[in-house]
Amino acid sequence: MKLLVVNPNSTAAMTAKIAAMARAAASTGTEIVATNPATGPESIEGYFDEAFSVPGMLNEIQRHPGMRGYIIACFDDTGLDAARCIADAPVIGIGEAAFHMAALLAHKFGVVTTLPRSIPAIENNLLRYGLSGRCAKVRAADVPVLDLEHGQEQVLAKISAEVTRLLDEDGAEAIVLGCAGMADLATTLSRRFGVPVLDGVACAVKLAEGAAAMGLKTSRVRAYAAPLPKRIGEGAGFAA
Amino acid sequence: MKLLVVNPNSTAAMTAKIAAMARAAASTGTEIVATNPATGPESIEGYFDEAFSVPGMLNEIQRHPGMRGYIIACFDDTGLDAARCIADAPVIGIGEAAFHMAALLAHKFGVVTTLPRSIPAIENNLLRYGLSGRCAKVRAADVPVLDLEHGQEQVLAKISAEVTRLLDEDGAEAIVLGCAGMADLATTLSRRFGVPVLDGVACAVKLAEGAAAMGLKTSRVRAYAAPLPKRIGEGAGFAA
Amino acid sequence: MKLLVVNPNSTAAMTAKIAAMARAAASTGTEIVATNPATGPESIEGYFDEAFSVPGMLNEIQRHPGMRGYIIACFDDTGLDAARCIADAPVIGIGEAAFHMAALLAHKFGVVTTLPRSIPAIENNLLRYGLSGRCAKVRAADVPVLDLEHGQEQVLAKISAEVTRLLDEDGAEAIVLGCAGMADLATTLSRRFGVPVLDGVACAVKLAEGAAAMGLKTSRVRAYAAPLPKRIGEGAGFAA
Amino acid sequence: MKLLVVNPNSTAAMTAKIAAMARAAASTGTEIVATNPATGPESIEGYFDEAFSVPGMLNEIQRHPGMRGYIIACFDDTGLDAARCIADAPVIGIGEAAFHMAALLAHKFGVVTTLPRSIPAIENNLLRYGLSGRCAKVRAADVPVLDLEHGQEQVLAKISAEVTRLLDEDGAEAIVLGCAGMADLATTLSRRFGVPVLDGVACAVKLAEGAAAMGLKTSRVRAYAAPLPKRIGEGAGFAA
Amino acid sequence: MKLLVVNPNSTAAMTAKIAAMARAAASTGTEIVATNPATGPESIEGYFDEAFSVPGMLNEIQRHPGMRGYIIACFDDTGLDAARCIADAPVIGIGEAAFHMAALLAHKFGVVTTLPRSIPAIENNLLRYGLSGRCAKVRAADVPVLDLEHGQEQVLAKISAEVTRLLDEDGAEAIVLGCAGMADLATTLSRRFGVPVLDGVACAVKLAEGAAAMGLKTSRVRAYAAPLPKRIGEGAGFAA
Amino acid sequence: MKLLVVNPNSTAAMTAKIAAMARAAASTGTEIVATNPATGPESIEGYFDEAFSVPGMLNEIQRHPGMRGYIIACFDDTGLDAARCIADAPVIGIGEAAFHMAALLAHKFGVVTTLPRSIPAIENNLLRYGLSGRCAKVRAADVPVLDLEHGQEQVLAKISAEVTRLLDEDGAEAIVLGCAGMADLATTLSRRFGVPVLDGVACAVKLAEGAAAMGLKTSRVRAYAAPLPKRIGEGAGFAA
Repeated sequence: MKLLVVNPNSTAAMTAKIAAMARAAASTGTEIVATNPATGPESIEGYFDEAFSVPGMLNEIQRHPGMRGYIIACFDDTGLDAARCIADAPVIGIGEAAFHMAALLAHKFGVVTTLPRSIPAIENNLLRYGLSGRCAKVRAADVPVLDLEHGQEQVLAKISAEVTRLLDEDGAEAIVLGCAGMADLATTLSRRFGVPVLDGVACAVKLAEGAAAMGLKTSRVRAYAAPLPKRIGEGAGFAA
Repeated sequence: MKLLVVNPNSTAAMTAKIAAMARAAASTGTEIVATNPATGPESIEGYFDEAFSVPGMLNEIQRHPGMRGYIIACFDDTGLDAARCIADAPVIGIGEAAFHMAALLAHKFGVVTTLPRSIPAIENNLLRYGLSGRCAKVRAADVPVLDLEHGQEQVLAKISAEVTRLLDEDGAEAIVLGCAGMADLATTLSRRFGVPVLDGVACAVKLAEGAAAMGLKTSRVRAYAAPLPKRIGEGAGFAA
Repeated sequence: MKLLVVNPNSTAAMTAKIAAMARAAASTGTEIVATNPATGPESIEGYFDEAFSVPGMLNEIQRHPGMRGYIIACFDDTGLDAARCIADAPVIGIGEAAFHMAALLAHKFGVVTTLPRSIPAIENNLLRYGLSGRCAKVRAADVPVLDLEHGQEQVLAKISAEVTRLLDEDGAEAIVLGCAGMADLATTLSRRFGVPVLDGVACAVKLAEGAAAMGLKTSRVRAYAAPLPKRIGEGAGFAA
Repeated sequence: MKLLVVNPNSTAAMTAKIAAMARAAASTGTEIVATNPATGPESIEGYFDEAFSVPGMLNEIQRHPGMRGYIIACFDDTGLDAARCIADAPVIGIGEAAFHMAALLAHKFGVVTTLPRSIPAIENNLLRYGLSGRCAKVRAADVPVLDLEHGQEQVLAKISAEVTRLLDEDGAEAIVLGCAGMADLATTLSRRFGVPVLDGVACAVKLAEGAAAMGLKTSRVRAYAAPLPKRIGEGAGFAA
Repeated sequence: MKLLVVNPNSTAAMTAKIAAMARAAASTGTEIVATNPATGPESIEGYFDEAFSVPGMLNEIQRHPGMRGYIIACFDDTGLDAARCIADAPVIGIGEAAFHMAALLAHKFGVVTTLPRSIPAIENNLLRYGLSGRCAKVRAADVPVLDLEHGQEQVLAKISAEVTRLLDEDGAEAIVLGCAGMADLATTLSRRFGVPVLDGVACAVKLAEGAAAMGLKTSRVRAYAAPLPKRIGEGAGFAA
Repeated sequence: MKLLVVNPNSTAAMTAKIAAMARAAASTGTEIVATNPATGPESIEGYFDEAFSVPGMLNEIQRHPGMRGYIIACFDDTGLDAARCIADAPVIGIGEAAFHMAALLAHKFGVVTTLPRSIPAIENNLLRYGLSGRCAKVRAADVPVLDLEHGQEQVLAKISAEVTRLLDEDGAEAIVLGCAGMADLATTLSRRFGVPVLDGVACAVKLAEGAAAMGLKTSRVRAYAAPLPKRIGEGAGFAA
């Protein structure tokens, strides 16, 4: 089966890293197609970046019909609801994927994200998904997204400090990595702390594979009904 | 003071109607500037339309600096969080405005919106704002947004039927009109049912005027921090 | 338009200070009438004081018919529900006013009140209004209400210490001042901390003006139905 | 041990009925002292009546020191928090007593109260106590409090109709009678419907006896700290 | 990989049916081992049956070490927490599996279970998992578990009636089948109603495969710490 | 009246201690019958121990028909729901008993339990009962259950340290002792800290006496319907 992994930001290097993580998680027989919009924010750090990445992300989904599943590879689950309205297969956000999987492995999980400004969007998502009460706390390591690529030692130290607080002060029993760019740290951190550390990219691949294998699709009733045909001014860049 | 009212959809006739409602609600000394994106969905009915209306709406905000307040005139509060990150004055969504005002006038309020597909986004907003418990129920009259312009009798009958159910079955004590295009029905319905009927456009004007008069601005800490400067591919259509 | 501001405690000096704050916030054309019961507790610090201030507060409302709005100038929103049953115009509590306004400016707000004993009533109000989840924490500066008048330096230091904790430890993005007597500190604190600091008196004036301008009134269905005529023993001091 | 049962309304006949119910529930060795304020509303139906009944109710508590427990015999738990601040023994409201006891006997309970206007105060109490989720629904039989004394057949029919709906439509497994004046119907209704039917007066007596026997008292930390000594204008009618 | 599917009831025919469903859902390379306790209740309908099925279910898990995942094939997720404490691989309940998967495909899902007595346990599980707000309603078709085997027409009619109410009255967008014995109806119902219909057995297989493939295990911190070695009276039937 | 107190663990010394506490709390005329299963875990520390103690606990209830009330003397309220299905009198868990009673004496209570692994089960119970919001925090003293018998000084110091944090950091106003084995510390701690300290054994005795005196029984509708007669394999050890 083919799964499309869309990195909603326009940084191809990050897409490549995410694609590698997705392929490592994929079952034999699953082909990962990874893409990102040609234009749009180079990273998504807060609501404003998010808003401008959505149309490009949706275009990528529309450019790739016939997939068995679609994965939105930004921890904010950017544009998830809109994507569900148009994709003809399940759409999984890496944030929700990690939260749901963590809820199967621990009474409470904690989240480490990049910047403090990203915390509210994650908190709002947890609330909507219903999983706020399962999350011990969302903490920020104060590392910009694109810095995750460099200075691994320092980045790891900052993230580890927050993991320690999540486990010792907040009562977390498992850790969710709150950015697609942290995916490669899961193994290191899991060994260091002796608790499950979840990367949303891998979780989303497994959930998308699972839903596809069962032949399940997004409900077309109410929330995710197909968009109504409507006139759009030129230049909006989509073709509903 | 000047307030910008942005209709996130591209239907100029609807913008004109909204502007008239806003002007009727504005205090002496408040100037209403009304605009809509030149392109984008002609109406917003569900998550997909919402996603494509946001960049245009944000561009309108950026094209109109120096306002004392910004109003997003779609009941879904489309792009509200992103707008707060860039506007240099408070940003009020007409949905949240109506909810907060209704909460000051009634123990529980009910919402009548257009299509069933619009209910989930409203429910999610209520959850995020904290006001789910104050909302008796969100009901849909099953009237497309652009039909609100025509066939008033039939539209009014459909909306009245849902209002009746909200008051009699669901325990609502006040009614929130769940679409900017219903604003002109507030007086008629209020007289017919003898309870407060709130139009979000007017509510948002009063809240924006109030916040501006107090000199209050959106917090710049965490959630609504100004966007970080970042490289964007061409064509993304914004200039952060 | 005329708004009645009732200070539910019997300290005329505090009423005068509140009236000045209300007038500073009022629009041109709004006349603030300020009053307090002749008898009753000199300050309201906890549930017991609250209970004895309510009948006097309600009498003040009944003594001033024909207003366009009524403001209860105690942060506990003392007697708010009862007032709504009898006032022929909207009634706004300064606590709820500040909470709702803060919710439009920040993802989460924090509250600084006077004494620890006042925290539970505020927490209960937040729960009822639906805004608990929007409040990062309610903290007490451990300053009695009437001491807010004296020793400004020390009072400011104590309040600032709690603001610091709300912003740094609790994740608040805006601050609500949890006592009418703190209203004059809003500007100083806002400058010092660089975040919105909300005074409920000003917020209530703007919300009352807004509701009145829209012609909205409290719902008379269920919760705030007019009191039924009934026999009352002598001396109860009201005339329903 | 002596327990004071305060009927917050001024209808002596209702006090007598409540006293009889309380005595029927009391253990050997428990003496029930029943009282009501000489003045104040003859019945409590909504927030306004509640506000005016509180000072008189608190005066009754202060006039009867040395009790082992205090029971507030109005289903709204009128003035409960204030009473806890001054009573030197536990204070139990009949509403909360019935809710907590019902929560020990059923997964979900339903409440039948008198008038629709009384529903919101009960809903707010359930929210504060934490027991909203345990309550299937609060319904009103549309019978004024003082009519409970007369026309038993018709009253019983109206209440039975709501009980039926609570059990059949709302999923209630036990019924709480939402007014002290309904206490004498508990046995009849329990037999008719075959589910537990709880009268708050009896429940409060047992909880007060229980707390007293264990030597437990209201916490004096924070919420229910003793009132601070303060100057009060004449005529306020209390002596803190 | 090997997954153990434990049917906690002792009806071998039901285990066979569940095993077939699990095998149909399993990926190539996944071996399903299905078992049930030799003794214990023949079906689980309510809390009492649940309690007596747990020790046998746990024994089955202990008798089958070395699996890559364990599935508890009762919709109540009977004994799930205890199983997590001892299994050396993830443990997935079919109830939670269906809820989490449904939450990825719909804004709100509805549940159809067998008997009314089974509703409360499901509601409690939803509350604990955090997914109450995502569930439109839990309804019972009033069909005993073991009757699911017979009289398919009548059973299907009863279940369809509840599905209709979930979709039309309660706002559900997807349906979760609330009993392992209903698994074979998923396809029929999905076609009939045009919405996703989820069978927990298949969902659990995919989630267990996914967790195993990622190398994730249950957290051993706090909730699911390994049992402490302790003395047990003879006959307790376990060997911790 | 006779009350059965079942200690679900098999440590007779602990049963004797619990029985003494229960007798100290019982009214004249109440006879306490105390028992524990002959086999099963010697202490209950986490979900696994809990699961294996339930069948023995239920057998004890079935071996003692005709009681006026049943008390489950483990703070986890082990097997409470199942017990309610079979007992012909109310069943009270000592955890819920303490929570409900504490909610009548304080705005928020804190819980001190034995081991960190026991916290999640308590948190889940609070959530189900509805009382999470009334609980400031659940803390563990890190003392194994059976160590409560020995080294009183050290145990008391560890528990006191957590009580201090509950009162000073978490806002608790009363303390609930989170293990039947701590019951004898209630008086000492209450004197030391000046706040109510609740032992669940005593609370359960008073609630059971109260319910019995009122003639109330567990509802037989839905959740706690009597078990359906069913075939059970040999050796399951019960006789429904």
